[in-house]
Amino acid sequence: MPKKKHIVVLGAGFGGLTFTQKFRHPNARITIVDRQNHHLFQPLLYQVATGGLAMPEIAEPVRTILAKRNDVQVLMDSARTIDVQQKKVELTHQTLHYDYLVVALGMVNSYFGNNEWARHTIGLKSLNDARRIRQRVLHAFERAEALQDEAERQRLMTVVVVGAGPTGVEMAGALSELTKRVFKKDFRSIRPEQSRIILVEAADRVLTMYSKSSSAKAQASLKRMGVELKLNHPVENISQGCITVGSETIEAESIIWTAGVEANPLVKHLPGDHNRKGQVAIDPDCSIPEHPEVFAIGDIVDLTDAKGVHVPGVSPAAMQMGKHVARIIHDELEGQSSSRPAFTYLDKGSMATIGRSSAVAEFGKFKFSGFPAWFLWLAVHLVFLIGFRNRLTVLIQWMYAYLKYRPGARVFEKPDSPNQPVI
Amino acid sequence: MPKKKHIVVLGAGFGGLTFTQKFRHPNARITIVDRQNHHLFQPLLYQVATGGLAMPEIAEPVRTILAKRNDVQVLMDSARTIDVQQKKVELTHQTLHYDYLVVALGMVNSYFGNNEWARHTIGLKSLNDARRIRQRVLHAFERAEALQDEAERQRLMTVVVVGAGPTGVEMAGALSELTKRVFKKDFRSIRPEQSRIILVEAADRVLTMYSKSSSAKAQASLKRMGVELKLNHPVENISQGCITVGSETIEAESIIWTAGVEANPLVKHLPGDHNRKGQVAIDPDCSIPEHPEVFAIGDIVDLTDAKGVHVPGVSPAAMQMGKHVARIIHDELEGQSSSRPAFTYLDKGSMATIGRSSAVAEFGKFKFSGFPAWFLWLAVHLVFLIGFRNRLTVLIQWMYAYLKYRPGARVFEKPDSPNQPVI
Repeated sequence: MPKKKHIVVLGAGFGGLTFTQKFRHPNARITIVDRQNHHLFQPLLYQVATGGLAMPEIAEPVRTILAKRNDVQVLMDSARTIDVQQKKVELTHQTLHYDYLVVALGMVNSYFGNNEWARHTIGLKSLNDARRIRQRVLHAFERAEALQDEAERQRLMTVVVVGAGPTGVEMAGALSELTKRVFKKDFRSIRPEQSRIILVEAADRVLTMYSKSSSAKAQASLKRMGVELKLNHPVENISQGCITVGSETIEAESIIWTAGVEANPLVKHLPGDHNRKGQVAIDPDCSIPEHPEVFAIGDIVDLTDAKGVHVPGVSPAAMQMGKHVARIIHDELEGQSSSRPAFTYLDKGSMATIGRSSAVAEFGKFKFSGFPAWFLWLAVHLVFLIGFRNRLTVLIQWMYAYLKYRPGARVFEKPDSPNQPVI
Repeated sequence: MPKKKHIVVLGAGFGGLTFTQKFRHPNARITIVDRQNHHLFQPLLYQVATGGLAMPEIAEPVRTILAKRNDVQVLMDSARTIDVQQKKVELTHQTLHYDYLVVALGMVNSYFGNNEWARHTIGLKSLNDARRIRQRVLHAFERAEALQDEAERQRLMTVVVVGAGPTGVEMAGALSELTKRVFKKDFRSIRPEQSRIILVEAADRVLTMYSKSSSAKAQASLKRMGVELKLNHPVENISQGCITVGSETIEAESIIWTAGVEANPLVKHLPGDHNRKGQVAIDPDCSIPEHPEVFAIGDIVDLTDAKGVHVPGVSPAAMQMGKHVARIIHDELEGQSSSRPAFTYLDKGSMATIGRSSAVAEFGKFKFSGFPAWFLWLAVHLVFLIGFRNRLTVLIQWMYAYLKYRPGARVFEKPDSPNQPVI
């Protein structure tokens, strides 16, 4: 019996996990590596940050998802270097030699060269980020309630969201509902409607990847909910509790960064051209030029597909690429020598929600907004969430939140002793 | 109209919250202070620590619970000093003057004078503690999976629980199930059945507050589940990753402390006798001697009730005291000059669970164990959990965990950057 081919997958996001779930061959074994112990359903991360959902409801241990796959080894570890010449990946704790490598490492926050901004803002890429945002915002309002100083109160009750892409828009909408409506019943001294949720964007409209009409509808929804929109306001500077946009300086306890992402730094280790965002140019089959045994998938790639569409960095594209690469490797192991097919992206549409009962959705020429788009958003997100238990509990949380205006996860853990860090 | 009486409640645990919920008078207003933003259902905290439940499922914001009570102000703050002469409480952010004071501050971990042990162990009093235990234990097994070194592997896969009271017993049982049974399907390199869960106790039996026959049944259950019991083993020393009990030294990545508690240090500010655990002796009506306007309730008091029963530090006693004090103050505000009734504890029984399908319960002369006790335990805990949504989601989690052997909250957040603290 020939030695089994070893396939190493870096990253258990939508791309890496889909590849691993779809690929199975008697002559191969997979090692999937992620620095976290869980696959994260990132589209709902903002709901964890704003107290709508609990962390385990949108995350599932990678081991659990793949528990029945005896041909798969799951490692919680970080890749340090990729050596495509020697076909090996160095992790913190061991070195893996591969026959095939699937790089699906995803994006990290980018601060356009101002890395010190990272210290004064909270991104939204991981459960830990979501936890920090929830702590920061909820604690700020608790402190405001105990204060008499009007200026300090206003500062504590101000949240700035930088970047009006889908994450920023969803975040700003959810924060506005939380602080202006939900809190209204809870607080006595402060007036929650006095809270400021400011959405800052360098471009001239929100959701630039959508049509202008959808952008306009989203903007109208945001305004109706009391979100202050600052379009054409590029960020000039950020320091602790203070952000300058355009010529305006805003004091805010909470500054949330959703403005830019770049490829995981490790992607630079891959040969080939890299664009400004660190994304790597790949061949039409998703492999790295001159390395047919190395694939890159998901938002870390810069690819114009067979139909001339530039593949966007969204989860359906990552999943489609994972499936595509699974098919290619499977066929090769079967000895089918036909040339590899090129990847083609199938655009299933996109949608973003803007708080309770409001959303925009686009499917080709079809555009929805308002309640129908929102309802569709709920349904699609429930269907794609991993695990039936998660679907059921999230559905209950949402029904309750909708009926009672009471999102169910508004608790945060303050460390008991001053020796433990607050954030 | 006379100025409203101001009642200050310190602590939103079972005692303080019950008082606030039961007391209502048109001539009074309440300020309730807690250093956390939530009431915590502590009896289920070990399930959060062992990945069975999510944090928001056992915690509810105090503000939300009391949202409809316009006569109640909730403050998230810490009391610094209590001055019973001047009738005032200093918080971190303000000073409160009271007409009545209800002290319900609860217990903190006690290390019998070895305060450095706190640094090497994790207690189980708060959501943050539970989160740290979950991170510590799950991360240890992930690291063990990536290692070849057998000794280090064994150290990572060893958990010591100090103290075999109800919390320690429940914790050890849940950890044993998690590591020996649930993990079995998940890991490939390590053999989870090789994990060691060691329960250490200075006394000669577990659950000393129960009858000997219940202790024996609990011990048999623990052994059947693979928990190593070390009775008559007082702790001699604890250092980082290392604990000495009796003459034996055990290397363990995770050491969990449930061995001792003492009254919140602030209770010392109350006049009157204090016992070794810092609990304050109170008058039969639950007030502090010579200060009829100051009450102490819950586990911080040292009281033998009207029937000669020494009131135990359990949540039903705290709730009964809260209700008792609410009645007394209400009657006084109504101008009823009759003397205050003495508090009488009604023992409704007690129970502890030891993992799946096993528990012990005692109601006066009636003793249960095994499945009936376990089922009763589930039912009682569901009924007392605050919030219907929580009850429903917890029920779903439990049903799933029971049917599928898959507790649903086995995720933890590893910080993304080394600049953020791991724990």
